Parts: sequence; C-alpha cells; structure tokens
Amino acid sequence: MRGVVLGLAPEARLVDLCNGVLPGDVDQGAWMLRWSWRHFPAGTVHLAVVDPGVGTPRPALAAAAGGQFFVGPDNGLLSRALSDAGEAAVVRLPPPAAVGVSATFHGRDLFAPAAARLALGMPLSRLGTPITDWVRLPEPLVRRTGPGRLQGQVIAVDHWGNLVTSLTERDLAQAGIGSTATVRVGRRVTRGLRRTYGDGKPGTPVALINSNGHLEIAVNGGRAEAVLGTARGGVIRVSG
Amino acid sequence: MRGVVLGLAPEARLVDLCNGVLPGDVDQGAWMLRWSWRHFPAGTVHLAVVDPGVGTPRPALAAAAGGQFFVGPDNGLLSRALSDAGEAAVVRLPPPAAVGVSATFHGRDLFAPAAARLALGMPLSRLGTPITDWVRLPEPLVRRTGPGRLQGQVIAVDHWGNLVTSLTERDLAQAGIGSTATVRVGRRVTRGLRRTYGDGKPGTPVALINSNGHLEIAVNGGRAEAVLGTARGGVIRVSG
Amino acid sequence: MRGVVLGLAPEARLVDLCNGVLPGDVDQGAWMLRWSWRHFPAGTVHLAVVDPGVGTPRPALAAAAGGQFFVGPDNGLLSRALSDAGEAAVVRLPPPAAVGVSATFHGRDLFAPAAARLALGMPLSRLGTPITDWVRLPEPLVRRTGPGRLQGQVIAVDHWGNLVTSLTERDLAQAGIGSTATVRVGRRVTRGLRRTYGDGKPGTPVALINSNGHLEIAVNGGRAEAVLGTARGGVIRVSG
Repeated sequence: MRGVVLGLAPEARLVDLCNGVLPGDVDQGAWMLRWSWRHFPAGTVHLAVVDPGVGTPRPALAAAAGGQFFVGPDNGLLSRALSDAGEAAVVRLPPPAAVGVSATFHGRDLFAPAAARLALGMPLSRLGTPITDWVRLPEPLVRRTGPGRLQGQVIAVDHWGNLVTSLTERDLAQAGIGSTATVRVGRRVTRGLRRTYGDGKPGTPVALINSNGHLEIAVNGGRAEAVLGTARGGVIRVSG
Repeated sequence: MRGVVLGLAPEARLVDLCNGVLPGDVDQGAWMLRWSWRHFPAGTVHLAVVDPGVGTPRPALAAAAGGQFFVGPDNGLLSRALSDAGEAAVVRLPPPAAVGVSATFHGRDLFAPAAARLALGMPLSRLGTPITDWVRLPEPLVRRTGPGRLQGQVIAVDHWGNLVTSLTERDLAQAGIGSTATVRVGRRVTRGLRRTYGDGKPGTPVALINSNGHLEIAVNGGRAEAVLGTARGGVIRVSG
Repeated sequence: MRGVVLGLAPEARLVDLCNGVLPGDVDQGAWMLRWSWRHFPAGTVHLAVVDPGVGTPRPALAAAAGGQFFVGPDNGLLSRALSDAGEAAVVRLPPPAAVGVSATFHGRDLFAPAAARLALGMPLSRLGTPITDWVRLPEPLVRRTGPGRLQGQVIAVDHWGNLVTSLTERDLAQAGIGSTATVRVGRRVTRGLRRTYGDGKPGTPVALINSNGHLEIAVNGGRAEAVLGTARGGVIRVSG
C-alpha cells in the first residue's frame, strides 16, 4: 500500500497511525480512527483498511469531512470518525475492474490509489458517485437506568490494559453525575473520578475521563483488564 | 539504521515495509520482499536485514534489478525478489573495515550507508565489485504428481492465519487445473477455487488465488492455520 | 502525537525509533534512547514518551545535548541519553494549562507540541525555565569483586533474546579483562569473547562486545534468555 501511494503521489507524507488492530476487528479500527483524526492537519487523507469483506460486493468509499479525507471499505470502519467530524460528503468508488485488481487486497489495489489521488488534490466528486446509505456502526450502549444512574460498556482495551467505556464526559454531565461518581465494574466498586492514572493507589482501580473524553478505568501500575477480569463488552455502571 | 540513512541522505523518504519477520527467518523475509518490491516506485532502495550471520565472512550485497535497488546480506534474503525482478546486477560491498564497524550490526554500520548512497544516486558499480554466485534460496516444493495433480507446500502464514502455498496461478494453469480444483490440506478437502475470503461459509476453509498470484487457503472469519492445524512446510495437494 | 507534530511543523520528518517498550518501562526506554540517539543527524528532536506519571506534578522536560534535542517526562527516560551526550541544557516546560490539555496524554498535548517547536527552530530557552535537578536513573550494577573480576547484571533482553549486560568494553579493559575472559551467567560458563553471533556453536552461549559497546550473551540460532534461564536483572560474573 505504501509503495502504491508513493508511486502515484511521490510527495505524500506517510504516517502510520495504527498497525495493531486485530484481524477483522472493524469496530476497533473505527474507534482508533475516531479518536485520532482530529489531531491531524487539515487535508490529511486517512487510509483505513480493516476489510474482512474484501472482494465481496461491499462498496468502497471515499469521504470528506471536518476538512480531512477518509478512504476505506463500506463496513462501518469510517463511520465513527465521520459521525464525529460532522457533515460528510461520501462517494462510492467505481467497482474494481476485472483486470489487474485482486479480489483479496483492495487496500493495495483500490484504496491506496484513491487515497493517493486525494493527496494529489483530485476533488472527491471525481473519485466516485455520491452515496448516503453507507454503513454506520451502532452507537455503543449508553443507558439511563434511573436518576443519576448510567449503564455503559467497555468499548476498547488499550495498550496499557485500561478499560475505555462508552460513557463520555457529556453523558455523565447530562445525567447529573459529577466527580464523586461511583463506578462499578464486575464486583469492584470505585468511588470518585480522578484526574490521572497516578492518582490511584498502586494496584487499585482508578476511574477518570480520558484524553478522548471517555470514562476509563485504569489500575495504577497494573492492567485493569486483568485486575478487574473484564474485557470488551463488559458492563459498567455509574451512579452520581 | 534510520538515523544513519538520514544522516547521509537527508532527503531520503523512509518507509517501513515489514518489522515483523521472526528473528533469523531469512526465508520469510525473502518472500516479503518478493511480494512487495514491484509495488514501489522506480528507483526505490530496498534495505533488507535479516542477518543471523552478521560479522561472519558472508558477503554483503547491493543489487539493481527491475528498476529498483536492493541492499542486504548474501544469505538469500534478496534472492526471491531478484529472481522475480529478472536480470540483476549485483555487487559485493567491500569487507567492513576493522575500525568503527561493529561485527554484530551491519544493518546500521554497513547496509544503511550503502542504501543511503544508492538513494543519493551513487552508481551501483561504485559500491562494490560484481558478483554472480550470490546465494539463491531454493525454490519451494512444486511437484507434478500425476495428470492434473500437483503437490505443494505452505510457504507462509500471514497476519490473518491464512496459509500461502508454493503453488501459483501459473502452476495450476500449466497442470490444467482450473477453478473446480480440489484442494487437500491435511485431512481437509476443499472443492473449488473462490474469488475472495467472504465466498466461504464462516468457519470453513476457502481456497483462492491471492493478491500475489499464489494459491492460498483461508477460513472466513477464522484462522486457517488453527482450523486446519497446518503450519509452514505443511503439504498441499491439488487436483483438477 | 504524529498528527500534532505535523500540524505545527508540516516539514518535520517523522521516524519511529521504537514502539515496543513495555507499558511503563522507563528504564528500557532510557536504554533504547541512549543506544540510538548518536546515530541520528545533528538537530534531530527525540520525542520520548514512557510516562506512567502523566498528569501528576512530575515536570516535563526539553533538553539540548550532543547537538540534538530531547523532549519527554522528567522520570529518567531522557537521562541515559543525556549522560551519554555530555553537557546538557535542560528546561522545564510550563505546567500544562488547565484548558485543553488532558491529564492523561501529555505525549499528544504537551510533548509533541514542544518537539514540533524545536523542529521549527525555536530556541530551547524559549520553551521553559532551566532546571538542573532533573531525574537521573541510577547507573546499573558494575562491581569490581576482585583483581580481574567484575560483576554486572542483565540490563536488557533484545528482540533476539540476547542478554545485554551492564558491563562495557571499557569496564573490562579497566579491570584488565581481555578476550580470554570467562563469563558466568547462572550456572553456565562461557570461555572467551567472540566477535560475532555466528562464532558460537549452534545452541551454545557466546559472549561478545555488542554494537553499543556492552558485553552481551547470545546463543547462535537460539534465544539466550530461554537457554540460560536468565532475565533482566540477572547477575553476570566475568573474570579475566
């Protein structure tokens, strides 16, 4: 993919955002993209490929939103970034021609060339035909279970074993839950939101609002995932 | 290595092709390079280091083939790409001078400077003396076992657990084996070649020609390596 | 972090030095930086983030030494490179303003902008106030246990399972220990220093001075860590 981009757009600057998404894990790729895109300069082209349906009739997309560009399969991978970026113009790339395009590596044969063309300044509208019913991934669980009570779920486990939850700072504020919140994960109860990882006693869970605005459960000097025995999809309950 | 290249060739564009080759796995590195080089622009310098024999008398090579350049140890690492690229001019770098060159990290001290010089436009012939008996890795097993019958082997297991085999689209065509082929891996039998991964039922093996022209066995939504209990070197039998 | 740097310094060249440091392993990051910095061109800005204390009152640093720049948390991460580079000018970055700066990702919000400004040519003195009592990691164990006898420890296990020790070529020379040294790791004894990995018999330990000047124990074709049952912190004894 990198070679193809540089062949078409020799001046393009290549930046690896994330090579660690698990095979086929579209949901995780969608979160990575959502939490990163806004920190890149205007005009950046985000080339995202987590594509278990490669070669099937699933469309290929290119999009413009928030002053940046996005290219990838129409399986929801781009959807969390696009919904975060606001109004998006999305086009469907032409179906891969039979000649010279593999049915198993559209990242190289289809998406990389499209990304290169956007990097070269080709208008989005010339890359394909407008589409509005592209795949949106469902929003993760955020449920009001009573006055000052929210239920959410773990949507990601990061490099450090921290549990990132579906509940955002805004969700908590709207539910009237402040910094004295009680957070329940499995049977463990944590009282009070902290500012940072080092505010917790070593080995005990600490709840905080992370750098992307999500409620996160960490363990100072440890892996919350292991200490709390909770994985992605695990339920989080918060009360104010 | 990156610092050394940039010190000598400040305008060089650095692209990481693959950092995941297992320690000392020259064969795997040789396949990675073969399957990637042609997608890079003309003039690209491929700096490849999988070098368990570093510091021993094994020569150090620089080569030009297919409009691109290759630098690395003479242990076969470059050989699959060079044989794919057609006619190659290969030179042997001067033996490392005793002063200032480690015997354990020629990637940094020997190959990176040579790659930088090629990137700066130095002619290959000025880097060393011509050599023709550089190490070629053996071709993998491709055996005609009868009319319309081929035997091959697994030559790589990719990031998704797919089994890449030694049998190419051309091998199958020459043996008169078409899309109705029967593929046997261990005790599992798969009938018919598919176009893409999603053509198989979830959890069952699917055989296809991959994006590099090799017969590949995948499992839709799973890891063929695990489902089929087959690793590198495993035997594949195909009949038309 | 990469997006933030490019947003401020569009012409900056980004090079990934190492993404494999274990979570929170400041010591390991400090060695990686020490063993790499000098191979980069003058003016390079090294942005290093292994930062378990992010958001706590630990200061944030920027430094100039050896013709290069260093940015990172004041937890010792920079200290091994700075002590290697000689005289260092170090400033403390202003405490993160409350607005718009997370307490959990200073790599993105604090260190990346500082690194970008250095890359743009801003003088170090404008980035913060001078500080001299920044955190230095302790030097690893190097003990003279008798005439011609040294005791050291394993300070790193590299990608190939090699054991890098605290003992340097200079330590050995000062103790009068030469190439006939006897090296003891656990119950295994290795006699004589070799030049390179391939000098040992396959499967047996080989001791050599590595490309960073440290005594290293490897196993030709194997992982010394596994063969010798020794991990970081393990004791090494050398006699001349």
